[in-house]
Amino acid sequence: MTESIGVAFLGVGRMGEIHLRNLASISGVKVLVVADAKLDSAERGRRMIGAESASADIEGAIQYPGVDAVIIVSPTDTHAQLIEASSMAGKAVFCEKPIALDLAETKRVVDVVLSRKTPIQLGFMRRYDPGYAAAKKKIDQGELGNLETFRALSRDTFPPDLKFLLSSGGIFLDMAVHDLDLARFLVGEVDEVLSWGSVLVDQRFAEAGDADTAVCLLRFRNGVLGVVETARRSNWGYDIRTEIAGSLGKVVIEAPQKIPMTFSKDFASTFDHYENFPDRFEAAYRLELEAFFRTLRERKQPAPGPADGLETLRLALAATRSWREQRPVKISEIA
Amino acid sequence: MTESIGVAFLGVGRMGEIHLRNLASISGVKVLVVADAKLDSAERGRRMIGAESASADIEGAIQYPGVDAVIIVSPTDTHAQLIEASSMAGKAVFCEKPIALDLAETKRVVDVVLSRKTPIQLGFMRRYDPGYAAAKKKIDQGELGNLETFRALSRDTFPPDLKFLLSSGGIFLDMAVHDLDLARFLVGEVDEVLSWGSVLVDQRFAEAGDADTAVCLLRFRNGVLGVVETARRSNWGYDIRTEIAGSLGKVVIEAPQKIPMTFSKDFASTFDHYENFPDRFEAAYRLELEAFFRTLRERKQPAPGPADGLETLRLALAATRSWREQRPVKISEIA
Amino acid sequence: MTESIGVAFLGVGRMGEIHLRNLASISGVKVLVVADAKLDSAERGRRMIGAESASADIEGAIQYPGVDAVIIVSPTDTHAQLIEASSMAGKAVFCEKPIALDLAETKRVVDVVLSRKTPIQLGFMRRYDPGYAAAKKKIDQGELGNLETFRALSRDTFPPDLKFLLSSGGIFLDMAVHDLDLARFLVGEVDEVLSWGSVLVDQRFAEAGDADTAVCLLRFRNGVLGVVETARRSNWGYDIRTEIAGSLGKVVIEAPQKIPMTFSKDFASTFDHYENFPDRFEAAYRLELEAFFRTLRERKQPAPGPADGLETLRLALAATRSWREQRPVKISEIA
Amino acid sequence: MTESIGVAFLGVGRMGEIHLRNLASISGVKVLVVADAKLDSAERGRRMIGAESASADIEGAIQYPGVDAVIIVSPTDTHAQLIEASSMAGKAVFCEKPIALDLAETKRVVDVVLSRKTPIQLGFMRRYDPGYAAAKKKIDQGELGNLETFRALSRDTFPPDLKFLLSSGGIFLDMAVHDLDLARFLVGEVDEVLSWGSVLVDQRFAEAGDADTAVCLLRFRNGVLGVVETARRSNWGYDIRTEIAGSLGKVVIEAPQKIPMTFSKDFASTFDHYENFPDRFEAAYRLELEAFFRTLRERKQPAPGPADGLETLRLALAATRSWREQRPVKISEIA
Repeated sequence: MTESIGVAFLGVGRMGEIHLRNLASISGVKVLVVADAKLDSAERGRRMIGAESASADIEGAIQYPGVDAVIIVSPTDTHAQLIEASSMAGKAVFCEKPIALDLAETKRVVDVVLSRKTPIQLGFMRRYDPGYAAAKKKIDQGELGNLETFRALSRDTFPPDLKFLLSSGGIFLDMAVHDLDLARFLVGEVDEVLSWGSVLVDQRFAEAGDADTAVCLLRFRNGVLGVVETARRSNWGYDIRTEIAGSLGKVVIEAPQKIPMTFSKDFASTFDHYENFPDRFEAAYRLELEAFFRTLRERKQPAPGPADGLETLRLALAATRSWREQRPVKISEIA
Repeated sequence: MTESIGVAFLGVGRMGEIHLRNLASISGVKVLVVADAKLDSAERGRRMIGAESASADIEGAIQYPGVDAVIIVSPTDTHAQLIEASSMAGKAVFCEKPIALDLAETKRVVDVVLSRKTPIQLGFMRRYDPGYAAAKKKIDQGELGNLETFRALSRDTFPPDLKFLLSSGGIFLDMAVHDLDLARFLVGEVDEVLSWGSVLVDQRFAEAGDADTAVCLLRFRNGVLGVVETARRSNWGYDIRTEIAGSLGKVVIEAPQKIPMTFSKDFASTFDHYENFPDRFEAAYRLELEAFFRTLRERKQPAPGPADGLETLRLALAATRSWREQRPVKISEIA
Repeated sequence: MTESIGVAFLGVGRMGEIHLRNLASISGVKVLVVADAKLDSAERGRRMIGAESASADIEGAIQYPGVDAVIIVSPTDTHAQLIEASSMAGKAVFCEKPIALDLAETKRVVDVVLSRKTPIQLGFMRRYDPGYAAAKKKIDQGELGNLETFRALSRDTFPPDLKFLLSSGGIFLDMAVHDLDLARFLVGEVDEVLSWGSVLVDQRFAEAGDADTAVCLLRFRNGVLGVVETARRSNWGYDIRTEIAGSLGKVVIEAPQKIPMTFSKDFASTFDHYENFPDRFEAAYRLELEAFFRTLRERKQPAPGPADGLETLRLALAATRSWREQRPVKISEIA
Repeated sequence: MTESIGVAFLGVGRMGEIHLRNLASISGVKVLVVADAKLDSAERGRRMIGAESASADIEGAIQYPGVDAVIIVSPTDTHAQLIEASSMAGKAVFCEKPIALDLAETKRVVDVVLSRKTPIQLGFMRRYDPGYAAAKKKIDQGELGNLETFRALSRDTFPPDLKFLLSSGGIFLDMAVHDLDLARFLVGEVDEVLSWGSVLVDQRFAEAGDADTAVCLLRFRNGVLGVVETARRSNWGYDIRTEIAGSLGKVVIEAPQKIPMTFSKDFASTFDHYENFPDRFEAAYRLELEAFFRTLRERKQPAPGPADGLETLRLALAATRSWREQRPVKISEIA
């Protein structure tokens, strides 16, 4: 790697544009090629970042001359193959979660990147949100004492469209997975889960064999009890709240007020909420990329890495199975 | 009933003193006799309220001349008998929850008071807290749309002493019961529960066959999913939070800041929490008694009444059984 | 004084009823006689508290047998005479602010009560609000370091009626006086004031020679700079906020949320405000009376006392003069 | 102007680096040359943004081939000359406030840019903060009704060093000026000011003929009363709060919580504050630059422009004169 890290950027959708904008303000990084199955999207991305080249050959872009790192923001079902190809080509990888929705495929990819010691970071961006990072620090410093309970609530503002829904893996793999990853990050590994789900928002979820409202109990190996609540609709804004309580103290991670202005009239005050993940986690998306390139420079392994991707997936699969089979499921069953 | 409602007041402990102080500021009510098994406690109560008489004969005080209503704040295991005696004597009754910890005994008492049309109110004071009352109003007005999720968190500051613990009926009957009652009050009847419990705070709970940290899933008849989280310790103050979300809106009931003062230094601000139920629910205790006497004057039935006491008990018993038997329990099983 | 303190209660208006209700819950105090120029008001008060007697002879009630203390909540222009008569009769006095709107009369009364060592407390209730009391404690403990700035904002929800307005003494004596008293209580004595006023709410204020919106700069003897903002209208609720900043820290006293419930919809959250002084300062009114009777029992002088009444009046008169004469005014000019 | 706007960037200090980072993420803008009196600073800036050239010749950089717009972040005493040179060279200008600390020089420059119709935007970034922008919208929509009061508080965390202090123009021109600009932006033009100042933080301010704590009354032409409070120290964080109240409603602009995490223990909760203008106004700095380039593309005049710079300066000069001469000063006196 020379002074500037050369990047191949794969996938220019909504999420891709967020990453491109953030990449622009990270110094010492040069996006060389932007690829997307749609060439005009690739070209739009190329212009945004001032890259040398745009391409509709996503996998080919990995081989573009000077590329040190590959950023994968293409559709979920392409992740595994692109990670593997990047790893085989000796590139570092930043990939949006998940590696794959399938356990066997995920394991295979994890084996490849581990055996090749590929530096790889997965896009569980919440870990980089200043709120979650500060909570992690408090916990690690012992300020909460012995942990006792974990609780996560996530509500998306609008249900996804049917096509996305059918390929999403379901509410536990697509949505709850962020909170399941936080549970592991902040509290530790989980021993057993129990899930209940319901269709309260939209009958299309029932037709897709999915739930739109779910709750999942977690029993951690260290005895902590956890609850993960997930829902596909929120008429009041993107609603994300996480609480961890211990023998000495408690942290609450929540960012309810989007704009620093409160309006009062008629004996009441009103303030605005965040609308979606791009605005709530704006800083997190920027900080996760900064961390990725910083660890590359320091020749360390970035985090969260492949083992996190695999363990969090097992947790989400266990939650799904518990819901389907109407029984508690041990994580050890997911093998 | 003449102009002033004559009251026999039974039980002068911590809770009794709170009710006596509130009674003093309710006009049109005259406490005639204060009774407690300890005569000096009865006498202390008598002086607080300026009653005519103090007595160590609790059940006898019901018969004191001029008594229209009996307020029962004596130990839990005396409630059933005192309610029954009051009802038989034709008195109105305000009684701290629960009627009894036992289903059969509760049913028997409920049958008595229903058959005699005794006006009776149970001390689920949270229903009268201005926060919960305002939430109920929003829900009834349809401002939340179709309800989707219910969540209650309650953490007490200090675990109770062992003696209390052994006679408390356990964490679901003693603590979670308040949130289970709110669940019924705000959302509706429950079909099925599933509980997990742990001993994380104090091994004495394990020895008592109890849990100190618990979580209980609720499936309401109307499809709403609920979670009730309960813990016996909170080093950061009395922690009570309830959330109800629907298709249109969400209410959060919480009163984190006890004193209207914030202190800032060293790049941070700090504010104080409530410490216990007497300070958090100060207004609720006063308002429930005001409502009790107001409904007596209006010759209506006060609420929550005997049916609420019975149904909420069944819910708490179901939660307990689910925890003990490690399986989901239908409320209909508790008969 | 025997075990129970005998009280003559003078004046049964809105404020009187608040005090009567609070008196009812203070043990060891017995209201013997309630007096009001309107006999039916006196009788209503008598019934509220269960007093022996009702009377339309306000001054005569001071002499009622067994009276130890007189509580004066009658119209402002009767305060001076009633305090003096109570003091001459050897009674302790609790009197709503102010002693009088006139400096000479106030001085005369203060001289009387000081020379007779009459225990007297004035109704600057905000000093007893838990927020202000906590702020005072922080300041006294040195947690703010050297004080630097003081700022008070007070907005009433509705302008008073014209009759009240004409006898109120104007915005500085009637409204700002509470914040001027807090300024002295929390920061210390003031050296110089400068006021600006405007009529922005209602032209009746101009006709009454008054302002409805005012701001007053304070230069304290200890160098602190202060600002007192006062307005006669607030469409968003009773708006009271006080800030004191020092070299080490800052306190903000404010109680924006009346009811512990937040409602969220349409990407925003809303919570309710206090509506008026009875609800915002509910606890303060109760605590000031409790403190009055406690200090009587302890045979100490209650506070705030006559010297506070006089000094705070001088401050309000100086603020009024500054506004009228359009120049800074030294408090020492008000003699 | 071709597709991409060519930029000469002048001045690479702390503020310059903030702007460079933000420029990187604005598409369609290309920084061609970065200049600073210190060549190594210029070179550091050049690398940050990937510019073609670095230069120690600040004024010369304006002439660099392809430059359409000049961004001036160099020391205050160079602004006037660089604006003038840029204007003469036909370039658009973004310049940090102020144009100059001197009225005559400011007028001269304003005359030049107005006569040449130079598109110029001054760095009063707070106007672009989402909180202030939302407040402006509420006011413009009439949701506050007739405006009545304006209040601004600004406290910096640490006093500046002596060298900066001596060339800063004093507390009103250097610090209060942001709030004076907001007063004009949100409420309208001011008729008269009255200032008080004190040295409470550091005696160096007295030696410099400056105050470190100040308060300034504003009487707006539309009758609104305003207060601007300014202080050079805040041990509790960068403290910025603005309130505008009207006949119908009130807006409060404040962003107290920096990180979306609250930590609770020992019966209290604590959250972190912003530390300085770069973190509090992070979004504002980015948004003001985005607006500048957007208006250039739309061939409109950006805002705030030269007239704002001049009027806000007159207000700050009036405030300074009022403090020095201890009398109210009409803005019309500053000519």
